[in-house]
Amino acid sequence: VITEWTETTEAGVTHPAGFRAAGARAGLKREGTDLALIVSDRPAAVAGVFTTNAVKASCVAWSAEVARGGSARAIVANSGNANCCNGPRGDADNRRMAELTAQHLNIAPEHVATASTGIIGHPLDLDRVEAGIAAAVQALDSGPDADLRAARAIMTTDLVEKQAAVTVRSSLWPSAVRIGGMCKGSGMIAPRMAGPHATMLCFLTTDARVPAPALQRTLEHAVRRTFNRITVDGDTSTNDMVLVLAGGQGEHVSATGGALDDFAEALERICLRLAREVARDGEGATKLAEVCVRGARSQEDAERIARTVAESPLVKTALYGCDPNWGRILMAVGRAGVPLDPARLDVLIGDTPVFIQGARAEFDTAAASAYLSRKEVRITVDLHSGDSAVSFWTCDYSYDYIRINAEYHT
Amino acid sequence: VITEWTETTEAGVTHPAGFRAAGARAGLKREGTDLALIVSDRPAAVAGVFTTNAVKASCVAWSAEVARGGSARAIVANSGNANCCNGPRGDADNRRMAELTAQHLNIAPEHVATASTGIIGHPLDLDRVEAGIAAAVQALDSGPDADLRAARAIMTTDLVEKQAAVTVRSSLWPSAVRIGGMCKGSGMIAPRMAGPHATMLCFLTTDARVPAPALQRTLEHAVRRTFNRITVDGDTSTNDMVLVLAGGQGEHVSATGGALDDFAEALERICLRLAREVARDGEGATKLAEVCVRGARSQEDAERIARTVAESPLVKTALYGCDPNWGRILMAVGRAGVPLDPARLDVLIGDTPVFIQGARAEFDTAAASAYLSRKEVRITVDLHSGDSAVSFWTCDYSYDYIRINAEYHT
Repeated sequence: VITEWTETTEAGVTHPAGFRAAGARAGLKREGTDLALIVSDRPAAVAGVFTTNAVKASCVAWSAEVARGGSARAIVANSGNANCCNGPRGDADNRRMAELTAQHLNIAPEHVATASTGIIGHPLDLDRVEAGIAAAVQALDSGPDADLRAARAIMTTDLVEKQAAVTVRSSLWPSAVRIGGMCKGSGMIAPRMAGPHATMLCFLTTDARVPAPALQRTLEHAVRRTFNRITVDGDTSTNDMVLVLAGGQGEHVSATGGALDDFAEALERICLRLAREVARDGEGATKLAEVCVRGARSQEDAERIARTVAESPLVKTALYGCDPNWGRILMAVGRAGVPLDPARLDVLIGDTPVFIQGARAEFDTAAASAYLSRKEVRITVDLHSGDSAVSFWTCDYSYDYIRINAEYHT
Repeated sequence: VITEWTETTEAGVTHPAGFRAAGARAGLKREGTDLALIVSDRPAAVAGVFTTNAVKASCVAWSAEVARGGSARAIVANSGNANCCNGPRGDADNRRMAELTAQHLNIAPEHVATASTGIIGHPLDLDRVEAGIAAAVQALDSGPDADLRAARAIMTTDLVEKQAAVTVRSSLWPSAVRIGGMCKGSGMIAPRMAGPHATMLCFLTTDARVPAPALQRTLEHAVRRTFNRITVDGDTSTNDMVLVLAGGQGEHVSATGGALDDFAEALERICLRLAREVARDGEGATKLAEVCVRGARSQEDAERIARTVAESPLVKTALYGCDPNWGRILMAVGRAGVPLDPARLDVLIGDTPVFIQGARAEFDTAAASAYLSRKEVRITVDLHSGDSAVSFWTCDYSYDYIRINAEYHT
């Protein structure tokens, strides 16, 4: 049982003992930092989940192999160039990125996970990458400033950096465990990650000691219920990736039983925190919306309906317009491909029932519209057909969504 | 073999002999006509396909029943109110709409198909509907003016009326066959209609004599390859419907063999014409885009990939921005859930290869961007894995898409 949960703002991946981080400028983006480095002082257990898109960036296969190895020392990530669809050269360039990092750190390349985000189909400028790596290695440090620099170096269309840091205690652990994380993602967000196989990037660190196989199972479970339940545009990236490094500097958390369960719960909470930040910072977003589907026959049914509502352009534009348009919600529920009885359906906007047991409910539309003007809103659909419930997180579609994506040029 | 194909502009559902039509104002919309009526002078064979959305408007079950009966005299359609999610009252109101039409025409209600499009969840104002029916019956006529009035009366966010009229000759027919049609649809467009089960509405007429079962099979085949391959927003409506009335005033087209095949081909061509017009007139659209997927292992694979590319918000915003962003196209191809080898992929923008056999092709980006500024563009993806090919039609996402859907209020 988790007995203490202390979140620290403005800290991130070096919150757990044994990690250093840096952000530097390689020059892949027009401006700002674009190369992040996270280093574990000791060989860390590593686990990862990766995009299920059939078109995968070069970093995906490489880092999946690192994760399979179970042990890693560093994560090097660049923004501005996805290094995807660059053929054999892309694979070679990615390997070189790992090798250069390894050389500068005097570790094995197989212990360096790579990640990239940015434009597809442009070769990586390795000279710039190497300069960035060299600068990052020089700047490696722990503490809030280093965390912030690393978290900013992986941003693309993100407006804010996304970090989490928590100190957790469990009645089953001898002492506290720390978990840190950083994450990016704003567009091309609909992660459907599978393991040991998301351009959502998330890097997590912990000083707990968890063997790699248990870490992998724990991560897969957490990601299925968090990052795989967010969407901005329904477009699953070629580069999505979540990696966790368990450095083992802290107390031993046993790989089985309650102690691991508590670690899994803590990891899932942090993943949820970060996943929600990605949806909130979706391209052009003015609000974060939770789509909660309950009373479903199965988790799969609930998830399919929640995803369909969360991805519906008509629902998302209604959210932007603060329009309590439950007709569009029902349309989306109905097109999800799940057999259902419309006469049993309830729809709530916030806590206000707007559709009850298949019929329009009387409600104050002005109040519902005012509710929808909030920064965080919730839509609930109750199928009254079972016990399964799922929440999905999405954002609205605004004029800025069009601006950002129509005015971005390759 | 079809030997003559003469399209007539500005004609529609009364182009075939034996049909009259009208458009009138019932007062369901703020302004303009909103009630359309199509009447066959004699009992016509009828066939229909309907939305597969699990949430269905009241007209869907009613008109499916009419189609099952095989014979109809009239189609009455209103715009401005979808009469969907109104519970038992909605069903009763829909039945009353058929009965009122039947009374005014002195025919059986079971021979009156109904269709509705507009806002979900608001009860139908039957007094207004009856006034509209009475006015429409008074105005029934044949010829281009009547066709145009009927076609306009079913428009909602459509900017232009959509009609088709053709006179066809086949070497296997004793004389010419005429086919007419009208159609509406601009938003909530991603028809996935199945028979004998789209708010895409399409009403087709022909003076050919085709028995209802053959007509149904012919329509289902045509719709699968046309209306079910268009998308505006990926949001499948609760009210989508295609109906065809075969009046039998013309020459007999035999229900089997080549004569029927030629009719099927003609019907599919007209469906394609109208379906493309719906995608072209998508909400906020500035262009029509064909997404052609070829070299697939199966039609299903090709269709799934084509639909995913056609529905991708990142592809649709790139189309609006005239950006030859093949990276987004490949992302969408990869996320379709079809196993594929990226190294075999070709992507063409218009006739220009931009990605060949898994690698970036050198191309004139300014010329590709100029091509994408056209009103009609084509993207081709070749999987080089089989012989199946499918075309899908979509439009771009513009600022106006957001305006139309965020500023529309329930």
